[in-house]
Amino acid sequence: MSDPIRLALVGMGKIANDQHYPALTSDADFDLVACVDRDGSCLAHLPYFVTIQELAESGLTVDAVAICTPPQVRHDIAQFALEQGWHVLLEKPPGATLAEVVALRETAQDRGLALLASWHSRFAPCVDQAREWLAGREIKSGRIVWREDVRVWHPRQHWIWEPGGFGVFDPGINALSIATHILPDPMFVEQSELFFPGNCSAPIAAQVRFRDRKGALIAMDLDFRQEGKQSWDIVIETAGGTLTLSNGGADISTTGAPPPPRDDVLPGEYSALYRRFAELVRNSSCDVDVRPLRLVADAFLCGRITRVDDFIE
Amino acid sequence: MSDPIRLALVGMGKIANDQHYPALTSDADFDLVACVDRDGSCLAHLPYFVTIQELAESGLTVDAVAICTPPQVRHDIAQFALEQGWHVLLEKPPGATLAEVVALRETAQDRGLALLASWHSRFAPCVDQAREWLAGREIKSGRIVWREDVRVWHPRQHWIWEPGGFGVFDPGINALSIATHILPDPMFVEQSELFFPGNCSAPIAAQVRFRDRKGALIAMDLDFRQEGKQSWDIVIETAGGTLTLSNGGADISTTGAPPPPRDDVLPGEYSALYRRFAELVRNSSCDVDVRPLRLVADAFLCGRITRVDDFIE
Repeated sequence: MSDPIRLALVGMGKIANDQHYPALTSDADFDLVACVDRDGSCLAHLPYFVTIQELAESGLTVDAVAICTPPQVRHDIAQFALEQGWHVLLEKPPGATLAEVVALRETAQDRGLALLASWHSRFAPCVDQAREWLAGREIKSGRIVWREDVRVWHPRQHWIWEPGGFGVFDPGINALSIATHILPDPMFVEQSELFFPGNCSAPIAAQVRFRDRKGALIAMDLDFRQEGKQSWDIVIETAGGTLTLSNGGADISTTGAPPPPRDDVLPGEYSALYRRFAELVRNSSCDVDVRPLRLVADAFLCGRITRVDDFIE
Repeated sequence: MSDPIRLALVGMGKIANDQHYPALTSDADFDLVACVDRDGSCLAHLPYFVTIQELAESGLTVDAVAICTPPQVRHDIAQFALEQGWHVLLEKPPGATLAEVVALRETAQDRGLALLASWHSRFAPCVDQAREWLAGREIKSGRIVWREDVRVWHPRQHWIWEPGGFGVFDPGINALSIATHILPDPMFVEQSELFFPGNCSAPIAAQVRFRDRKGALIAMDLDFRQEGKQSWDIVIETAGGTLTLSNGGADISTTGAPPPPRDDVLPGEYSALYRRFAELVRNSSCDVDVRPLRLVADAFLCGRITRVDDFIE
């Protein structure tokens, strides 16, 4: 076993505290050596820096960083980290634009560093079973329903309503990270309707119609205004039965053939993510799948915009 | 010399008549064998079809098609053409979304067919000189000004105001096709302001701020409401002088070192495009540079939208 990877967490918001910190502290492959946060949030027993530049100047030895800031500032931090010779994990979405993510991949490859554009939802318990079940089956149609209460899941995350925050596509991109992973054919946007609150620069709801290359319709319904029961479901109709992946990939059911068996003991999504990152760091290689972000960009590019009521948190 | 490539023109609108037809009929590499247009426009002496399906059913031998329809319908026509075993040239922009263009490239590669995502502005007379002059120079900043009168240049092109028509980015993508070709480093969107008429689903003006990987600012000013003098200019400040590429790449001037010499006799933009396409067809290879379209998608993805006066043609 190699020495642990000395990692700094950058951006100590909700996702870093809820997910990255527990995954890292229970992973022998990583040694969490510092945290960076412009607002001064820090897990008390770790060296703390306000900016990544301060971290670099401190002389602390760092092998890698995980960037959990809002997407709008991720690129500059990642570019700086790569210039220090540090490997980089990017929370999802990997950036506020596609071109900046592609440019980071080029930088990482040129410098022989690992870069992971992470899609945690792909590591939900039943996603690989769904992928295996769908492989080789003829897709007839699909339906993605991702309806959640923004006030519950994204409290005070003002960046989500700013340009580059993506609004309801911030959770919606999780659905697309699963769909692009499990569906056998590429899909693309055929029609997109975006609902923008009058006081926001990002949509609060969206209806997007995709087609796969063979013409199957995949309809996506995203809504941030869902109270009561929440939905994170993907249903795929095939010529050989229906697959239902629900609760964001935690549950699976099928008609026709049963789903394939899975391992009894599965790591959590973020533990699996860090296993993947450790593998990339050991090999100095990149895993940057831009497909989910590209579909979101396409939904904006050809979106028809409707104004709806202001959003007041 | 090989046999001429038997080509059908699909979508007989302004660009097909103004540019493709004259370029093709003076090119010995191509034999224009049919035209396809849903509205029945056709150059009289050619076999004519309303749809590409009719063309396929006619039994006429076709090697390649050039697709000049509005972008919203390009993908399905191109996919059908590739399924017939025909090589494909796509007018710019190559589609209404990025993912559909990437999917077409995969289809073409899988089938061993040529696919050209054409960017005619890159073949403007002084573009290669500009690229050569900028190579290796340190870029300080840039300014792209593309201001034209939509009523003059896009009469009755209602598709331009629909989702996937891109509005002012339809000409603006020409500027980006040049900028991505001549600038030594990749650039990406830092800030984007889009001005949508109340009655349109696409912007009539845009202010986009790009940065290149080394931090240089490239400011882009697009406006469809320009009366009087029209502007299609790119100015790049470098550590070794200023380059001005004006009139859409037709004129060049520099301070410091003069621009490199160029050939006395240059083909027109579309003649050069068809030379490139002939080369790809002979080699069954693809040239699909998505960078200009990706930057437009990014400008929409992180755009801040302002409503402006309705557009009445």
